[in-house]
This record gives sequence, structure tokens and C-alpha cells, in this order.
Amino acid sequence: MARSWTLQEVGQHNTPSSCWVIISNKVYDVTEFLPDHPGGSKIILKYAGRDATAAYEPIHPKDALQKHLPPQKHLGNLDSSGAKQLQVEQASRRRTQDEIRVEKARAQKRPINQILSLKDMENVAHDVLPYKSWAFYRSASDDEITYNENRRAFSRFFFHPRVLRPISQVDPSTTILGFKSSLPIFVSAASLAKLGHPLGELNITRGAGRMGIIQMVSHYASVSREELVAARVPGQPMFFQLYPDRDRSITQQVVRDVDAMGFNAIFLTVDAPVNSNRERDLRAPFELEEQERLAEEAARGNESDEMPERPEDADNKLVEGELKLVGTSGGLRTTADLDMSWAETIPLLRGATKLPIVLKGIQCVADAVLAVEAGVEGILLSNHGGRQMEYSMPPLEVLYKIRQQRPDVFDKLEVYVDGGALRGTDVLKALCLGARAVGFGRAFHFAQSAYGEAGVVQTIRILQREIILGMRLLGVTSLEQLVPEMVERVDWQPLLGKL
Amino acid sequence: MARSWTLQEVGQHNTPSSCWVIISNKVYDVTEFLPDHPGGSKIILKYAGRDATAAYEPIHPKDALQKHLPPQKHLGNLDSSGAKQLQVEQASRRRTQDEIRVEKARAQKRPINQILSLKDMENVAHDVLPYKSWAFYRSASDDEITYNENRRAFSRFFFHPRVLRPISQVDPSTTILGFKSSLPIFVSAASLAKLGHPLGELNITRGAGRMGIIQMVSHYASVSREELVAARVPGQPMFFQLYPDRDRSITQQVVRDVDAMGFNAIFLTVDAPVNSNRERDLRAPFELEEQERLAEEAARGNESDEMPERPEDADNKLVEGELKLVGTSGGLRTTADLDMSWAETIPLLRGATKLPIVLKGIQCVADAVLAVEAGVEGILLSNHGGRQMEYSMPPLEVLYKIRQQRPDVFDKLEVYVDGGALRGTDVLKALCLGARAVGFGRAFHFAQSAYGEAGVVQTIRILQREIILGMRLLGVTSLEQLVPEMVERVDWQPLLGKL
Amino acid sequence: MARSWTLQEVGQHNTPSSCWVIISNKVYDVTEFLPDHPGGSKIILKYAGRDATAAYEPIHPKDALQKHLPPQKHLGNLDSSGAKQLQVEQASRRRTQDEIRVEKARAQKRPINQILSLKDMENVAHDVLPYKSWAFYRSASDDEITYNENRRAFSRFFFHPRVLRPISQVDPSTTILGFKSSLPIFVSAASLAKLGHPLGELNITRGAGRMGIIQMVSHYASVSREELVAARVPGQPMFFQLYPDRDRSITQQVVRDVDAMGFNAIFLTVDAPVNSNRERDLRAPFELEEQERLAEEAARGNESDEMPERPEDADNKLVEGELKLVGTSGGLRTTADLDMSWAETIPLLRGATKLPIVLKGIQCVADAVLAVEAGVEGILLSNHGGRQMEYSMPPLEVLYKIRQQRPDVFDKLEVYVDGGALRGTDVLKALCLGARAVGFGRAFHFAQSAYGEAGVVQTIRILQREIILGMRLLGVTSLEQLVPEMVERVDWQPLLGKL
Amino acid sequence: MARSWTLQEVGQHNTPSSCWVIISNKVYDVTEFLPDHPGGSKIILKYAGRDATAAYEPIHPKDALQKHLPPQKHLGNLDSSGAKQLQVEQASRRRTQDEIRVEKARAQKRPINQILSLKDMENVAHDVLPYKSWAFYRSASDDEITYNENRRAFSRFFFHPRVLRPISQVDPSTTILGFKSSLPIFVSAASLAKLGHPLGELNITRGAGRMGIIQMVSHYASVSREELVAARVPGQPMFFQLYPDRDRSITQQVVRDVDAMGFNAIFLTVDAPVNSNRERDLRAPFELEEQERLAEEAARGNESDEMPERPEDADNKLVEGELKLVGTSGGLRTTADLDMSWAETIPLLRGATKLPIVLKGIQCVADAVLAVEAGVEGILLSNHGGRQMEYSMPPLEVLYKIRQQRPDVFDKLEVYVDGGALRGTDVLKALCLGARAVGFGRAFHFAQSAYGEAGVVQTIRILQREIILGMRLLGVTSLEQLVPEMVERVDWQPLLGKL
Repeated sequence: MARSWTLQEVGQHNTPSSCWVIISNKVYDVTEFLPDHPGGSKIILKYAGRDATAAYEPIHPKDALQKHLPPQKHLGNLDSSGAKQLQVEQASRRRTQDEIRVEKARAQKRPINQILSLKDMENVAHDVLPYKSWAFYRSASDDEITYNENRRAFSRFFFHPRVLRPISQVDPSTTILGFKSSLPIFVSAASLAKLGHPLGELNITRGAGRMGIIQMVSHYASVSREELVAARVPGQPMFFQLYPDRDRSITQQVVRDVDAMGFNAIFLTVDAPVNSNRERDLRAPFELEEQERLAEEAARGNESDEMPERPEDADNKLVEGELKLVGTSGGLRTTADLDMSWAETIPLLRGATKLPIVLKGIQCVADAVLAVEAGVEGILLSNHGGRQMEYSMPPLEVLYKIRQQRPDVFDKLEVYVDGGALRGTDVLKALCLGARAVGFGRAFHFAQSAYGEAGVVQTIRILQREIILGMRLLGVTSLEQLVPEMVERVDWQPLLGKL
Repeated sequence: MARSWTLQEVGQHNTPSSCWVIISNKVYDVTEFLPDHPGGSKIILKYAGRDATAAYEPIHPKDALQKHLPPQKHLGNLDSSGAKQLQVEQASRRRTQDEIRVEKARAQKRPINQILSLKDMENVAHDVLPYKSWAFYRSASDDEITYNENRRAFSRFFFHPRVLRPISQVDPSTTILGFKSSLPIFVSAASLAKLGHPLGELNITRGAGRMGIIQMVSHYASVSREELVAARVPGQPMFFQLYPDRDRSITQQVVRDVDAMGFNAIFLTVDAPVNSNRERDLRAPFELEEQERLAEEAARGNESDEMPERPEDADNKLVEGELKLVGTSGGLRTTADLDMSWAETIPLLRGATKLPIVLKGIQCVADAVLAVEAGVEGILLSNHGGRQMEYSMPPLEVLYKIRQQRPDVFDKLEVYVDGGALRGTDVLKALCLGARAVGFGRAFHFAQSAYGEAGVVQTIRILQREIILGMRLLGVTSLEQLVPEMVERVDWQPLLGKL
Repeated sequence: MARSWTLQEVGQHNTPSSCWVIISNKVYDVTEFLPDHPGGSKIILKYAGRDATAAYEPIHPKDALQKHLPPQKHLGNLDSSGAKQLQVEQASRRRTQDEIRVEKARAQKRPINQILSLKDMENVAHDVLPYKSWAFYRSASDDEITYNENRRAFSRFFFHPRVLRPISQVDPSTTILGFKSSLPIFVSAASLAKLGHPLGELNITRGAGRMGIIQMVSHYASVSREELVAARVPGQPMFFQLYPDRDRSITQQVVRDVDAMGFNAIFLTVDAPVNSNRERDLRAPFELEEQERLAEEAARGNESDEMPERPEDADNKLVEGELKLVGTSGGLRTTADLDMSWAETIPLLRGATKLPIVLKGIQCVADAVLAVEAGVEGILLSNHGGRQMEYSMPPLEVLYKIRQQRPDVFDKLEVYVDGGALRGTDVLKALCLGARAVGFGRAFHFAQSAYGEAGVVQTIRILQREIILGMRLLGVTSLEQLVPEMVERVDWQPLLGKL
Repeated sequence: MARSWTLQEVGQHNTPSSCWVIISNKVYDVTEFLPDHPGGSKIILKYAGRDATAAYEPIHPKDALQKHLPPQKHLGNLDSSGAKQLQVEQASRRRTQDEIRVEKARAQKRPINQILSLKDMENVAHDVLPYKSWAFYRSASDDEITYNENRRAFSRFFFHPRVLRPISQVDPSTTILGFKSSLPIFVSAASLAKLGHPLGELNITRGAGRMGIIQMVSHYASVSREELVAARVPGQPMFFQLYPDRDRSITQQVVRDVDAMGFNAIFLTVDAPVNSNRERDLRAPFELEEQERLAEEAARGNESDEMPERPEDADNKLVEGELKLVGTSGGLRTTADLDMSWAETIPLLRGATKLPIVLKGIQCVADAVLAVEAGVEGILLSNHGGRQMEYSMPPLEVLYKIRQQRPDVFDKLEVYVDGGALRGTDVLKALCLGARAVGFGRAFHFAQSAYGEAGVVQTIRILQREIILGMRLLGVTSLEQLVPEMVERVDWQPLLGKL
């Protein structure tokens, strides 16, 4: 490991049979690792013999190389002249249109005290995030119908506020799986927070700890579980979102590990055995390419008013084999367990841990009932924020159906929802219908992308203010007073502004 | 009091421990008053040692200083050179973008005879009001869903007009709590009319008196109750909107005072123990700031095409403590009674007055029934014009539910609605369903902002014409002939233009 | 009468006590007629002592002066130098912005063979009509909700077309009140056709005669009844739309006259005892004024970038007395019978004629039942094209309600609908539900405004083609085969383009 | 045939009594054929004595002249100088605005690997197709309400996805009428593919063969049936869409011919005995004309700012006789059987073939039941993609009604739907409700217009990916597991983007 390497030396190992890469001025031999890379070998080979830092960092926890690459493949450092050259290349690289846009937006960013709503926060994130990161966070399946309908579902529930009730003392706190939460909300798992901010999921852990709410950590967090656990304040509970591996021993090991680390519950993801068709994410590279093409056009001036023709090579060619499209997250899930089942998967987890188990991604009444029968501690009504099955019934509508058809479910386990909530009133509606808490996923990614930990705290404070305000105006002082009679599903569709 | 002060002298008292302010060239020592100011000390300290006239006048009745500040704190006049200097400063002050816009709009204002509808009136008000005043009047909670749905609810009710009925003699008059009203409408309370016109609520009192309708005066009128009472025509009834104080003896005193002054009923506000999240109002200062920033940019020309960066100081900082946001009206309500109750509050008022009591802000059938049981004389179905609980059911829908579920309520007390009405047909729909009268709040603020008293009169005349016309075309000649069979709630949503 | 007058002589009679006007180079003394003018004296006095031709001609039948002014008030001709001067003045008059627009639009008008739908026809009319005429024809009450909903109602009815039925021989003809009609449509009355074309209602009479459909002539046609009757082809039936006068002997005389002239039925207007609030029409003068003002601004160039202020005189003045707003048609109705009744009005007509009587403007099931009881021959479900009671239920919905609640009505009298129909499928829907024929009002005004008689014929041909096509695709060959089972009211609202 | 002709010689035969045309440099005498031309003689006479190649080729199969014109009317070749002159004329012809637009769009066309959805494909087709071809493919009846509602109907059905089910092995294959299909989709017939691509329907045959799905060939394919049959891969099934001729012996002969050629089923078109009013198609010539007119205007510069007036000749002329409007496909259908019936038409076909018979264009439950009684093998719920009866109930709604009212229909015959489907989820919804397969018509025309055979393959691959993905996320591994309980018709209307 004492050796250092020149760029030329590294550059010679640029084939599948000998593949080295540079990450943060360190040299690694990943040849034997290629077939095991969860994201496939192709993406690594793109950087064979070259610097891969920019592509690697935002999507891998710091400990990924330690964990997955044996010590002897850590070949040592890039030499200082190589490091310098990389630095110069990076500095002199022509910035893309998108980078220029982001830089301006960051300079013009509103002060955080002007952020009054979660939508404000999302707008800032939209402005300051690189387009590709934005597209990954924001994207949803197909035509984003479910994404939009998740939100619109909330708008069809109106309140019957009660008046002349003492409301000076309001307590919005609750417990989730027995763990104290200052508000009836939690952070729902979302992956790759470092695409938005260098500290990534750490921002969320710290903000959640500071404000007393619970974070569900993504299986595919870009910060290592160890780091996140270490960043907790004393007594801060933390949940783990599990994607089972097709190698079930790995699944069990992961569960055992997170149990040992101090996580407090397992949220088993059941709505995403495979990734769906997230077109906004898939299109991002084309959009950026087109942006550069148009900028070049404009730069060349109006010398000729004919647009140059596109190269025809990729055109009109028959697609061979099944169509495989993978976006930003595509590589994460290559070893997913496609054969989960009620009979096997829950016992598998029970065999590895005594932690409470929650099913994340229940989408109909029938499965809610099966979950009761399977004896899990909770269900999260969710369609993955509209990122999985397009035209999956909005979670709030599923909640409402359970309330109407099988209200006994609420007595047997805890029911949560996520997807579409943006306001304190949304949380209160769900609670009236029987939910114990409401999860927010994208909201926290947007918040930490825009303002780091401060953004996370501001998001929670906004919800806190809105929840307390809403409780008062509904005439309730504790969450148990929120009852089904206080909401009504109306038979018209309110107009929303931009969703 | 004979003494006069220089600007320099006043300027030295610019701290919490010695705080003087100038208002209309008079000097006041408000140091000891700071903790008692309903709007908080912060807003006063902003003007410590300086002229506060422009900020003070539009939101305080003329007698506020007399009432709240002991005589010895009225220190005397500003000297003439100080007064002159303030005048010069005021005159030479660079006008803001918003001031420039308003001035142009006022010069271009349409003659009042071109105002054919309440929407026309609102449009003029929108154009001629300073943005901050507009934002305060027009704002509603959160995403303004309830504000919009209040209006849209009216559009779902259609008529079954009757033909071949004699309609030459039409009488649209009624009584409200036994007091004669020329039309089945009244002015619903809204605060701070001086933000729109120097004569403020006086315009409304005079217009209402001239046209024979009843004004409900806001607890937070910017003209003193004494002045308004004095401006009545003989026999003109007047109602008082009450916000109870947490010090219940103060509440009783206010009730006794207004009873003694000659007010004819108490409208107890039950939907607003705390103010809601009115973002349009909260954002107004940011919007104006941004407007100035952009104007400066433009003025500097295209010398550099890079936008200067925003100062970063306020940025990324953690918000400490609970999030408190107060808009224009925020300061009004610091001593509100958060613990009103059916058991205590109504008896409290009964103990202070024999005036009829109406509950303003009933939002569901259950509370309408409780109101009957509590023995009040009337209820105003209202959600504060969408300014309080977001997703509160629209008042017209609540009225319809009472008609369907508990029609006996209409026999026990008088039922009024406000929120969303803009046309004579809206009034007639509510009356068909059982309402006795319909309140208009913002409409009168807009009217007096646009054209003073003439605007108020024009608004009433427009409604008068529309109500009489509608009665004739429905085939009725008196309000009692308006029956539930004449309206039908349709199962589709008509398209409205701009709401 | 042999005398001729100079402009100076006429000009001296410019007061209420001596009021002369020039019409088509003839001089009339209208002093004594002033109080009798149905449109009020004010509009005449505007032209006292001057030429009134341009204002008079489009809204009066040719025989109006003969009928209403005694011979001795026909004072003779304007002298030739006066006539010449008027001609010069007219020619040298600066054209308004609207006149310039119309002239261009007429030059660019599409050839009639490109008019494929009634909407196309309306679009041409919109382009080539003076704004004021357009506004009068197109306007509807208040916010034009009913106008729009009349149209949208048709879109909520879908067909269940039947297949494998022989459809080579299709007969779309029917009878209306026993009179043969080549199609199940008729011309519904609308007034003042000369505002759109110099030949006015004559275009419609001729086109209807040529195509074998029946015209209902407006009480307020701008062509005399005699001329229209004379323009019929042999055997062409014609209906008369009646507005009763408050002097019931006049009403009876009108009925006797039209009976004697050869009209074949009386359509008694019951939905319009008073005119409603048609804002588009009322605003037209303000809009045109504003247009001129802006054009003047623009002409003066950018010398000053400050817009001149509006004169303040009309501003801020209190409106005294009841608000009276009259648009283009306002003057027509000053002696309307406001006290029509089931008990008196129908017997009144029966006493004057044996012609069939149809009630025009039935708007609910209850009145349809009363009409049956009153023994009239037919009812026209109509809300006056959205021009009278705003939020009157759309006629097609009323038809549907009769079908559901009182289908026996269809056995007792003929039921027609008008308002909102634009396509052959609209006609077929109404017929499926039980209507005998569908009326088109504005459509024919637009057609004759755009292309005269040819426009009327093209409109009928378009409907003929659409009706026959629709019958074939529904699998029917005669109108009796159109049954309720073929249509279904759906529970969603289809998207329409521009209404 | 050995003779060759000069342009002058051909040019003399330019009348109905002697009409020659040149097609691909060959000379034909079509005088006697004129009355037999399915598209009418008028369109041929437009090219009498001239070259007709450009108009002829895209809408006629190659064998049309061989089939329909006796050998002696094939007069021989155009001489080489004539051929050269035609070539020169073609080359020097000024290109239209539309041709210029298309050329640019083709040069800028996205590579096919960026086409991620059927909507993407449609967008490319829209850009690269001549406007007239686009208008023909895309057009639908009247206001295209049914076209839009077909699509919107799918959006009202939501899923209840099931979780924790093994889904690694998914089989999306099925059979249609006993013939294997790799996916539950098929190509629904649409005519004149050569308007979009020189190889026309061949692209579809080849793409379908490659991917294992079944093509229903249009009666009015622009490629001959023989060529299409010849292009099949071994074992590739193929269906024939039949339009019966009023001469029923011709109908039987066509059926016998296609049976003999190897087609595997007859789809009898029952929803289109006559063509409907497809305005987009009908307007295309006017739109293009207007485009040229405006371009000429612009070219002439701003010398005069007055637009030249349109020629008035066509204007204001009365339309004589019935209105007949024919668009691109109008000529195809002049001998259609308008008198099809349940009693005669199906026995007629049974008498000519033993192939399975499917009724294409069933639009209501009643006719689905009649189809069962008539003993056909299948029904295609379809309204011809919104191109026939406007306001025909959307096929998916008809399917849902059958499921609710007459589920026994699904046991008696196979039910298919087409119209409005664009996504894999659409297919899955229809299958849940009982459909066996879903047809795509325009989608394949757009695909082959944009990218030829590769476009067809890409379209199928996109659907394949979406169907498999959807099955997995619904928790099913074979199509039989798709059951009605998995979908729910919701009572609100989701927002779609551009339809």
C-alpha cells in the first residue's frame, strides 16, 4: 500500500481482465469485484483505468470499499503529479449548462427564514439541485398519475372543525411502535441523500434527533449505517428499511447486523421487488445532452440557420432482446428477492431478530388483513411515493377503505401512511381516519439538499406549527381526540394549484 | 405637554429601557407600555427614537393612544424643524416599485359607473391597493383551498325557476335578529379597513346606513367604536364582533361597553382562537423586498450579466424554538382566550349583557345542534372566509347538511352564512336552503378601498339589483317564498373563470 | 310633406320640447312620441336635431315609423345639400378601431365551403361582427355559467350505438305541432338580426324555407312581420314568439294580428318577464371606449411614458336610486307584463286565437306538469340560452329529469329544448330522451351575420349531415327509433375544448 | 405494351371520355374504369392526361392496377424524355412549408433508444409526418370527445396491487382465438400505412412476426394482402379486417380469398357502415393552403401592411344539395354495405369460410349479448378509435358494464378492446375486467411512420416491459391471475397531462 501510481500506470488497466480505478486519489484493483457489483460491471468499466471519484462518491457510503474490496486490492495512492493533473483537469473542465444553472441558483437561494411550507422547500431544492439528482428524487412511475393522485387524495377530505373547546394546552406527541415521537410524523426511507448534499443522510439523522422524530433509514443510504447510528442523540430511536436479498442468508445477516447496531424496527419493503418505469429519471441523461447540444448551437451563432442533423447511427436500429432501462437507482437492486411470500419472508425475519416488523408498501385492504393474520407489528400504507405500481390506489384512499370495510385492523396493529402529504392538515386527516403517523420521504431529501441539517429542522418545525395550529382549530388537544367523524370525503375535486 | 422636542432628543431614546416614538409630530414615551402592546414589543422597537406614523396610523383607531397610554407619557410635540425634516425626508424618499405601481393604477382607475359586479370591484381594489394591504385582505390559510372552495360550493347549486307568477311587486327586505334590513345581506366583520382607505370602517358604516343594511363591526376595527356609532343614521342597527380576552373580566367589560354604546348584538367569534397560517400575508414583505432587488438589478443595467449573490447570513441557520410567523394581523391577537367552552363562554357573555348572541364560525352540523342547546339567538356558518382552518367544509355545504340532517335547527335560531358569496344568486341559494341572511366581508373592504363610501353603496346596489332580478326570475316576490325545492345540488362541477 | 329642410333648421329642434330627427334623409318630429318610445326617450334625445340613421336602422323594422308615428309628423326630406353634407361627414369620419378590425376580418373571411361546423360559423361571426353586435348576440347572464353549462350538459350524455342494422334508408323528418319539418330542428327566436346583416331575419326565413325547417320569429325582429311572412315559400310554416304587454288588450291584438298574417303557432315567452344582467353586452361600450383611448395613446407615441390620468369626474360619486343597467336590448322591453300567471295569461291568448300555444322557457319538472294541466300544446325547455336566470338548470338536464320523474308528460304535449346544442349528436341525444325537436337561436344569427342566407343554409346542411350520419351510426332509420336506452348520463365530465 | 408515349400524347387524353394517367412512368387508359373507382372518378380526373404517381402510390397496394385494370389498358411506358421531364419538374418544384418542416424534423429526429413510451413514439410521428398524413391518422369524429374519453376512461381505473407473492417467473403470453401471442396485445387494423412510410404495413407484419404478436390487416391496407402474407415468419398468425361490400357476392369472394391466402380469422367491421365526420382530416387541405398563403405574405415583406383580400368567388354561395365531405379515406368506402344485419351478414360469412368470426366495433352490452346469441367467436369492444360515432361510450366502460351486468358473456366468447390504451397498465386493467387482449391501432402506424420496422419492434418491447413490470408489481405471474378484484373504478377523474 505504500506504493504510489502514475496516471499512465493506472491507465493501462482499462479492460475487464484488468480493471483499476482511482477514487479520491487512491488506486483500486476492482477486476475480481466486477461480477459482484450490485450496479453491474458496465458502469465501473466506463471508468476503467481512470478517475471515478465524481461518479462514485454521491452514491456510496464511505465504508463501501472497506466492506466490499479485500485489503490487497487497495493498491495505494495516486502519485502527487497524477493527483495534481486530475485537479487541473477538473478545474479546467468546461462547465455544463446545468452546472452553470445550479451555481446561479445557489447564489440566489432564498434565506431559510423565507421558507414557509414544504412546497417552498421543494421549490428551492428544484432550483439548486443538479437536474439529474432532482430527476431521481422527484421521478415517479410512467405518467406520474399515482404520484399526483397521492397528493390529490388528501384534498378530497374536508374537516368538520369543532368550536368552543379549550385548546391552550396542545400535545402533538405520540409513540410509534412504542417509541416516543414528538410529532405524529416520521422520516420515510429514501435512498442516496448524498446526491443532494455532501453530508447526505447525516443531515436527516441530526435534524430528526434534534426535533425528536424518528428516521427510517434507507437500505440504500449513501451514508453508512454505522455513521448514522453514531450520529444519534442519546435515546434517539431509528428504524431500518429492508430490501431482502435473493440470498436469504444475506437478508438474515443484514437484519442481525442492524439489530446489533441498535436499530429499533425493521420496515420490510414489499412494494418494490423490482424497480418501476421512472421516466423522468430515465430521460435525465437525454435532457442534459439535448441541453448541451442546444447551447453549442446557440454558441455557434446564427451563421447558418439550419440545425445540424443528428447523427443517424443509433437511429432506426432494431432493439434486440428485452428492453432494459435503468436510471439512477437501477444498479442498486440487482440481487433483489423476487420471490418474497407471506409464508416465508416474515418467518425468515422473525428468525433473525426480535425487533418489531412493519410491512412497507401495503396497497389494499385485503393485504392489510393478511398482515394482521401474519402478526406483524405495523403496516405502512404506501405505494412508494408513486414510484412503483402506476395507478396504485392512493394510500389515503386505502386508509379510508380500511376504516370503512375493516376498522378492526386498527385494533390489531399500527397503521401508517406515506405519499402525498405536504401539510399539517394532511397529517391530521390521516390520524382522524386511524393512522398512527404519517411518513415524509422526498420532503426530507429536498430539505437537506436545499439547506442541509437546517433544512431538515425547518421542515419539521413547519409541520409542527401546522399540526399544532390544525389541532387547535379542530378543537382537539391530543391526538386521540382526532376521530373519523371529524373528516368527510367530499364528492367533488378541489382545485389545487401546481401539484 | 407644552414642551417640544428635537429629533436628536427623541433619537436618544431608542432602546427597550427608554423608548420614545413620534406619531403625527407628537412624542410619546412607550417604554413601560412595551410589554403590554398586543402586537408585541418588537414592532415598536423597530421605530424606537424615530417617526412611527406611517406604520401606526392605518392599524390603530384614533383613540388608541388616549386609551392605552397614560397622559404623562404624552410628552408633547416634535419641534417645527424636526417636523419639517420628517416632511422633507418623506417627500424625498425614493418611492418603492409598489408605490409607483399604485400611483399609476389610481390614475387609471375606472369610473365607478363601470363597476358592474363585486368581482369588478375586487379587481379595482387589487390594482389600487398597496400590495401588503391587498395581501392581508385577500390572504387565506395555507394553499387557499378553503377560500376557493367556499366560492366553488355556490356554483354546485342550481335553480328550478318557476314561471307564470306575478312578480311586479318584489320585496327583498327582511329582519335580522329582529332588526330591519333592506336586503337579506349584512356586512361581516373584517379588521383594519384603514389599510385600504383613510376613512376605513367609517365608509362602511355610512354606506350601510344609507342603504339600510346592517354592519357587524370588527373587534379590530381601525376606527374607534365610538366614531362608528356616532356615524350611524338614526335607527341604524349595528352588531359587534367579539374576540374574547383570556382575562375574562376584560371580555365582560368589552361586552358591557359595546352594549352601552348602542350596539345591537354580539357576534362571538368561535373559529379563530388562534390565527392560522396565511401565507400570502406572511410572504408580502419578502415579495416586496424581491421586487426592489430586481428593480435595482435592472437599474444597474446589463453591465454585468451575473446576478449578485444574496447575502448568506440568514442562510442555512438552524431555526431555534418553535416556528412563529406573524403577518399583518398577527399582533392583534396576543391575549386571545384559548380556552373558550360551551359551558363557560356563553354564560360569561350572558352575565354581561342582554343583547342577542350569535356564534360566528360554526363549521359543522354537530356544533349547530350544540348552539341550539346552548340557547344562542343565531349562528353564522363561516370558516372566516377561508382564513382559519384549511379544509374546513364550505359554509354553504354545511348549510345544506343542516337542511338535510337537522332541519329543525332552522326553527330554533337564525342561521346566517358568509364566505364565498359574490352574486345575488348566491344569496338566494342560501336563503332557499334556510339561511336568513348572507354576510359579505372582503367585498366591503375592497369596495371602500377602491372608492370609499361610494364603493360601499355601489356594492350594495349591485347586490340589490341582482337579488331583485333573481327573485323575479325565480318567480317569487318575498323572501319567504324561497324554499328548498327551488335549488338542487348538482353532481358535476361547473367551470368558473378566475375565482 | 313636399317641403325639404336644411340641417340648420332641423338642428334647432334639439330639445325634449321640440325634438326632430333625420332618418335616411327624411325628417321626423318625434316630440310627442318621446314618452311612448319602448326604448325610452333618452336614447332618442341623444340624436335630437341630428341624423339618427346609423343608430335607428339595425334595430327597427322598416315599417316602424309608419306604424308608430302619425303622418303629420313625417315632415318631409332633408334638402340635397344637407344630405350631401351628411354623406361627406359619414365618409370622412375617422373609423374606430373596431371598424378597422371588422373591415380586415371581412376581407379575410374564409370561403363558406370551409365552414364545417356550427362552431366554425360562430368563429367567423365573431371575427366579422362589430364588437357591440357580437356582445349582444353572445352575451349571457352574470358570469355566463348557465350559458356554459347548457353546452356542457350535452357532453355528459353518451350513446350506446347499435350495430348490424340496415341503415341505407334514413328519414330524419318529423312534424312539429303537426307541421312538417325536414329535420328535428327549428329556429328559436332571437331579436335584432339586422345588427349582423342588412337583410336580418329575412335571411333566416329564406334559408329555412329553402331547407324545409320552421322559423320561430322573434317578437322583436328587426324586419317587419309582414315582410317575413311575405318571404315564405308556399306552405312554409312559421311560429311567433310572443312577449305579452302589460296592457293585455295589446297582447291580444298582437296575437290576433299574427294569426291573421298566417303564423302557425304562438310561443309564449315565460322565462323573461324582465331582462337579466348581461354583462358582456353592458360592458361593450366601456370596452370600445377603452380601445379608442389606448389607440390614441399609442398614436401619440412614446413621447411621454406616463399614461394620462383618467378624468375623475364620474369617479367616486355615490350612485343615487336603484341601479338600472340597460344593454342593447334593454329598451325593447319597457312595457312587459310582469304579472303573467297560469290562471290568466293562457286563457287570455286562447281568447284571441285558436293557434296552438307553446310555453317557451319552462325550467323545471314542476312547471312542465303545470303546463300539461294548463292544456298547452307544447313546452320549450329553455333558459333563454343562459340569458335570463343564472344557474337555471340546463334544459337537457330538465329534459332528463322529466324522463325520469314524469315520463307521462311526453304523452300529453310536445316537448322541445333549446340552449347549448351545437352538433347533430346533441339533437339526437335530446330526441332519445323524449324531445320532439331542438331549437337553435344564436347559431342562426351567427350564420346570417357571417354569410347571409347562404350561412343559414350551410348551417342547416351541416346539421342535416350530422343528424343523418348520427342516425346511421346509432343504427336507426327514423326518429321514432331513438329511445332512452340509447343514451346514458355518465358520472364524469368530459373535457371540452373552448366552449 | 412495347410502345412508349410522349407527355404530349398522354396529355391529349385529359377528359372523361378519354382519360389516361401516368403512374411510375407507365401509361394507363382508365376511361372505362372511371365509374368503378371506389374513390370516385373526380379524384382521377384531376390527373387526367398527367402524372398521378405522387397521389397514387401511398394509398394503393402495388397490385391494384394488375387487379383492377385489364391488361389492354396498360398502354406501355412513358418515353425517356417524358420521364426525364417529370423528374426535372419534381426536382425543381418549390417545396411547401410543410415539406420544409418535415425535412427539418427528420434531420432532428431522436435516436430510437430515447423512445421510452408510446407517447414518445407518437410525438416523433407527429413531428416527421406530413401534416396531411398526420391529420388522417390522428383525426377522430367531430370534436374528438370520444377519442379523448377513450383514453381518459383508462385513468379512472386504479389497482389494488398484492404484495409478498413470488414473481420471479412471469409469463405474459396468451392465445387469441387459439393462436399463440407472446403478449396480450394485437395490432388493430388501420388503413393506408404507406402514407407514413414507403414500406407501409410490411413494417408491421415484420415487427409483429419478430415479436410474436398478431396483426389484424386492414381491408384497406396500402400493401397488398399477398405481400403481407408472404412477409410472415413461419407460423405467424394473421387476422383480416373485413368491410362488407353492398354486392354480397364480392363480400363472400373476399372472405374466400383471404381464407385461401392463409389468414386466420375474420374481423367483421360493424361500427363503420359509413364514414363519420373527421374534421381534422377534412380541414387538412385548408390548413395547408392557409400556411402557404401566410408564407407568401411573409415573403413579400412588409411592403404593404394590408393583407390582401381573399378571393370572394367561393364566398356567400348557397350550398346546393346534401353536404358531402370526404377526407383522405373518403374514397375508400363508396360501395359499403349499409344494410348489414344480424340475420344476414354473419350467415353470409359463415357460408364462405370456416374461419373464426369476430365482430369489430361492439359498443354496448345489448349488442355483446346479441353477439353471443349469434354465435361468433369473439367481439372487439371498439368505437373505431373515436373515428365513428361521437359520444360512443368508451370501450373500457363498455367492458366494465359487461363485467357488471352480464359477466356470462366472458364465458361464451373472447372479448377484446381497443381505443385509448397507451401503457402496459392499460392492458392489465382490461384483462382484470375480463378482456383477453387489447388492440393498438394508431400506435403502430405512428411507430412505423417514425422508425419503420424498428419502430414497430420498439413499441412492442415497450409494452412488453410495461406489462411484465406491471404483472410483477400486481403480484401475478400469469394472465389468468388478473381478476376483477384487482381493479376499482374510482369516483374521481385523475388529471392527465396532454392527452
